[in-house]
Amino acid sequence: MPDALLGEFDVIRLFADLAAPSHPWVRQGIGDDCAVLDLGGERCLLVTKDLLCEGVHFLRGTTTPRQLGWKSLAVNVSDIAAMGGRPLAAFLGLGLDAAEPAFTVGFRDGFLACARAHGIDLLGGDTVRVPRDSVISVTLLGEVARGELVRRAGARAGDAIALGGPVGLSAAGLWLLSAGAQPLDPARRETLVRAHLEPQPQVALGRWIAGRGVATAMIDVSDGLLQDLGHLCAAAGLGARILADALPAPDALAAAAALPGAPTASDWALAGGEDYVLLFTVPPERTAELIEGARRDLGLALTVVGAM
Amino acid sequence: MPDALLGEFDVIRLFADLAAPSHPWVRQGIGDDCAVLDLGGERCLLVTKDLLCEGVHFLRGTTTPRQLGWKSLAVNVSDIAAMGGRPLAAFLGLGLDAAEPAFTVGFRDGFLACARAHGIDLLGGDTVRVPRDSVISVTLLGEVARGELVRRAGARAGDAIALGGPVGLSAAGLWLLSAGAQPLDPARRETLVRAHLEPQPQVALGRWIAGRGVATAMIDVSDGLLQDLGHLCAAAGLGARILADALPAPDALAAAAALPGAPTASDWALAGGEDYVLLFTVPPERTAELIEGARRDLGLALTVVGAM
Repeated sequence: MPDALLGEFDVIRLFADLAAPSHPWVRQGIGDDCAVLDLGGERCLLVTKDLLCEGVHFLRGTTTPRQLGWKSLAVNVSDIAAMGGRPLAAFLGLGLDAAEPAFTVGFRDGFLACARAHGIDLLGGDTVRVPRDSVISVTLLGEVARGELVRRAGARAGDAIALGGPVGLSAAGLWLLSAGAQPLDPARRETLVRAHLEPQPQVALGRWIAGRGVATAMIDVSDGLLQDLGHLCAAAGLGARILADALPAPDALAAAAALPGAPTASDWALAGGEDYVLLFTVPPERTAELIEGARRDLGLALTVVGAM
Repeated sequence: MPDALLGEFDVIRLFADLAAPSHPWVRQGIGDDCAVLDLGGERCLLVTKDLLCEGVHFLRGTTTPRQLGWKSLAVNVSDIAAMGGRPLAAFLGLGLDAAEPAFTVGFRDGFLACARAHGIDLLGGDTVRVPRDSVISVTLLGEVARGELVRRAGARAGDAIALGGPVGLSAAGLWLLSAGAQPLDPARRETLVRAHLEPQPQVALGRWIAGRGVATAMIDVSDGLLQDLGHLCAAAGLGARILADALPAPDALAAAAALPGAPTASDWALAGGEDYVLLFTVPPERTAELIEGARRDLGLALTVVGAM
């Protein structure tokens, strides 16, 4: 056993090495956006869980309580979306250093607004008073028809790589929040900051893709395009080519990248993270049909950004 | 809205007031040991979630990492037991201030030992590096046959109140851990300290009770006998009488209570908490059969301690 501290993935591996599932109803354990349980019936149960810690994942100075409540649930909704599923029921563990009414009510209102937007019931949890550094733990259950489950594994050589929306906006918004006053058009600033603080998980897109049975693999972009694409590659045993010029390039992102001291737009797009848009692979002969269908059925612009 | 800080139950009420379940498959939301989801099939899904925070729920100085891992899962197993259920799958959120290999491996071994003891698969979670104050969030899924579910609500006037084991040992163990050296027989000290650090949830008893359909209400003793009995009373709209002389009185508890400066044995038994034994109500005419059956089938001494 090494003496140095363990990294996040070391800790996961320590558990995963000894935690091989023993039950036949486990269709997916550690290693995808959600665990998948097949407990009988037409549908599989999806489970995801996240832990958000003050000072690590959020700062009270740069988010409203309402935005924090929204985002705490939204990032889990995105994990359900990434399997093609529908969210059902949330459980909230809330460790507050000081349960000020204004903060608690704002957090609740944002959390429940996200729940209502996605048809989720809040069914339980736990609240604790902690001495400092608030902590938020959300568990979300969802469901997916057995035949519609989409996983990280499954991409094939030649598959097109597609994005459900632009990436990098959230990272640019985070940069703006920490960079102080910047000479940026207020509407563009608002677009980027809201992408970071009020992410919109793509549940409708995920279900639409799953229902058409066209994606060979899917994940949501939470750690950054390159890193999450890396998960699809590792699961498939393949490499991937991304065409930087093909990445969606919203005006707001380009404008922020032109500010003094800012990273480039492609740095944000490739390595940013917390975009919560879907990243998926499809057989190349079906991309045209898919792009046209998403525009028609969902009013959504999909973008092919490379190939496996 | 008041200006003072909110207590734990205020926070729960803030959420519960606005979180009425919207879905027909919710059989129990906020307000019992577990949420209960009826997603079709023969069995209901049980879900419970707990948040343990360093400095509030545990101190590294008084528990081994292995004991902490065991207890983190065991307290959730007890919630499943309290509904008559069987645990299935765990999800672990782990925020470590420093993931030292020895601590992490010890925690993992205790957690997985409890998982194996109860047939639980660890299927996912989240790990985070936090600057200080480690935090552990466990979500546990379980199942119960639809007709065997036992809730907090349902006790009737005249029902006997029964305990699955002695209460107060855990509180006495906690007192010993904080009271420094004490002139107590080492075996007795060990009994009490282990009751606190390595609780044994009563899954077999819960399932046996549920299978016989004899309990009208059930809960596990986590907050203390009086407080948890208060939950059964509130759910039933009834009061209760406890016979202090009828409480199980293990030697170790009496010996610790005789130490200088110690609380009384009945203080520990009534108000202690973290015992994780089952507390349930049964029609009075069936208590004799139940006590005899538990002795025969489980080798377990049930005790009637009062009446609703």
